[in-house]
Amino acid sequence: MSLADAAKRLLPLVEADLQQVLGIPHPDLAAYYGMMHYHQGWADEMLQPVMARGGPAGTSGTAPAKASGTGLAKASGTGKRLRPLVCLLACEAAGGDPRQALPAGSAIELIHSFSLIHDDVEDGSPLRRGRRAVWNVWGVPHAINVGDGLFVLARLALHRLADRGVPAHRCQAASLAFDQACLAVCEGQFLDMSFESRSAVDLDQYLWMIRCKTATLLAASAQLGAMIATDDTELIGRYCAFGLNLGMFFQIQDDLLGAWGDEQVTGKSAATDIRDRKKTLPVVYALNQIHSDGPDAARQLAELYARPGELDPPAIQAALELLNRLGARQYAEEMAEEYYRLALTSLDEAGRENAAQSDLRELAASLLHRRT
Amino acid sequence: MSLADAAKRLLPLVEADLQQVLGIPHPDLAAYYGMMHYHQGWADEMLQPVMARGGPAGTSGTAPAKASGTGLAKASGTGKRLRPLVCLLACEAAGGDPRQALPAGSAIELIHSFSLIHDDVEDGSPLRRGRRAVWNVWGVPHAINVGDGLFVLARLALHRLADRGVPAHRCQAASLAFDQACLAVCEGQFLDMSFESRSAVDLDQYLWMIRCKTATLLAASAQLGAMIATDDTELIGRYCAFGLNLGMFFQIQDDLLGAWGDEQVTGKSAATDIRDRKKTLPVVYALNQIHSDGPDAARQLAELYARPGELDPPAIQAALELLNRLGARQYAEEMAEEYYRLALTSLDEAGRENAAQSDLRELAASLLHRRT
Repeated sequence: MSLADAAKRLLPLVEADLQQVLGIPHPDLAAYYGMMHYHQGWADEMLQPVMARGGPAGTSGTAPAKASGTGLAKASGTGKRLRPLVCLLACEAAGGDPRQALPAGSAIELIHSFSLIHDDVEDGSPLRRGRRAVWNVWGVPHAINVGDGLFVLARLALHRLADRGVPAHRCQAASLAFDQACLAVCEGQFLDMSFESRSAVDLDQYLWMIRCKTATLLAASAQLGAMIATDDTELIGRYCAFGLNLGMFFQIQDDLLGAWGDEQVTGKSAATDIRDRKKTLPVVYALNQIHSDGPDAARQLAELYARPGELDPPAIQAALELLNRLGARQYAEEMAEEYYRLALTSLDEAGRENAAQSDLRELAASLLHRRT
Repeated sequence: MSLADAAKRLLPLVEADLQQVLGIPHPDLAAYYGMMHYHQGWADEMLQPVMARGGPAGTSGTAPAKASGTGLAKASGTGKRLRPLVCLLACEAAGGDPRQALPAGSAIELIHSFSLIHDDVEDGSPLRRGRRAVWNVWGVPHAINVGDGLFVLARLALHRLADRGVPAHRCQAASLAFDQACLAVCEGQFLDMSFESRSAVDLDQYLWMIRCKTATLLAASAQLGAMIATDDTELIGRYCAFGLNLGMFFQIQDDLLGAWGDEQVTGKSAATDIRDRKKTLPVVYALNQIHSDGPDAARQLAELYARPGELDPPAIQAALELLNRLGARQYAEEMAEEYYRLALTSLDEAGRENAAQSDLRELAASLLHRRT
């Protein structure tokens, strides 16, 4: 058994479950759900089904009838369906049946989708996964409302835990933990936006922001998976810590890709984080070097970041060079690796030894050198 | 006892509960929650506490310390806190303790707030309740994220039903009904937006849209209140029907106010629904008079509505005159009254006779001649 086998076994279940949750309930709502299908990669801009990698798309609505084969290749590389996979594997590693965790895995994936759609509007990002963002195809009003719909459908997906025989008290606890994670996502997005208009952000504030915005949802993925399997709060806490550290690692990688990633590979515009003067970890680290006898490069970077509006391409290039000179890239890379090690330690502390546990380790390792 | 007494008794509880739910959890998030407070009317654009009608605002955060006296005057006129009041009164009328229903009342009010903030962005409406809309003060990105936060906080508010001794199975049922209502709100908003770009909308489609977008949340208000009080599904159904019919009545009144309301009284720009070529009930009724031997006025209206972009003031004036000539205003007024009668019938069919039941009747009657 390996991560590839686990993905092959579990991701088609996730895909089928998501398709059930996002089923078109009425012909007059086909375009509404169709926009959700587009974001999932199941439909094109004309809301026509797209060919899945594993075979032809289905004819029911815009969702492909069979999704097997689509998830595996991406699972270890792009983070696609990363959260449901963590959720199902954590459930299995903690001694549960991963099928019972499917409603939670889908719910978390839909919250992730919701946040991407709204973030793209808020950041003005035209591209997502190499395709036009929802707002860029159908406009901001529909994109907001599509995100809202995914938010509610995530909740409705989660309600189905009870149908899968999960005890009521675990359903209730999972529901509360889920909503608390969603609040953190929104608070993190606020902090992220507010950092853009602030000159000084210290490292603790930055780490709190990415904990809220990104890491909490990965923590909830592992936490909910474990909660569905067991009442052992200590064990649940270990998986939660695994997800949290994995999430911190993942976001710092994103920060690195947002500055030094390859547009052709990430599917996003190059250096958008720099263009938008985002206070990512490398930038926060570099700007915190400003003091009486600090390096000139830090002051020069601060001047670039004090400019109004978007940075133009020459300014972006200058900022990237200053960041390199200030050791900001290396610092962020080292911190990412530190969170990776913490994630593995949390897993070890769970004290479980089984195939799913190994799969979680392999999953973390597979993210180490991701390029998107 | 009267509605005024009920409002005086219950609305301060609602206000205090909302203030608890929207409490600032960390100083760095003060501006995030402050924007929510602004939308609730508790803070101004500088996020400073505003004076409540009943007395000075408090000093804790931006929420007034005492809200007594603020709700009563508005409760019977503006629809402010209408949904929590319906929720609490339905709970009491069905034999429950309205204090137990507070988490549900707050949750529904917060969903209403969320939908207004996002609707204002989606519709580009600059004003809300006589003040600048959230997006118009802090920009679209923050407005989207503030709405999202209110959405999650509504869910977290609802979780507190269990703390108030509501049995677990009723909490679970209320949670599901709540999420189903939220989905209808999003679907209704999609239908509403899609109608703008369609030439033909028939009356059934229109009624389905307002059922989703507006009436379902008022239905859920009464339904959840009753659910918290009783397991009698037939009784719960009567209150749900009351809320649904009240909501249909309320929305058709809104349509009338959106065309013929007084800007000084509604706090919204005049005839924005016409300007934005919204397919409101009067318009749908009028446009459906187009057929081979239909009136010229209907064809003229269709021509106006076929123009691209916003209608200019002369076109708005012309549209209003055509609507009058086609009997569209009278038709909508009669339909509003019909739903009002149905709401009262649903109440009668509940077969309860108590003070809260009378208050619900009085509440419906108080909306009959509202001007905002």
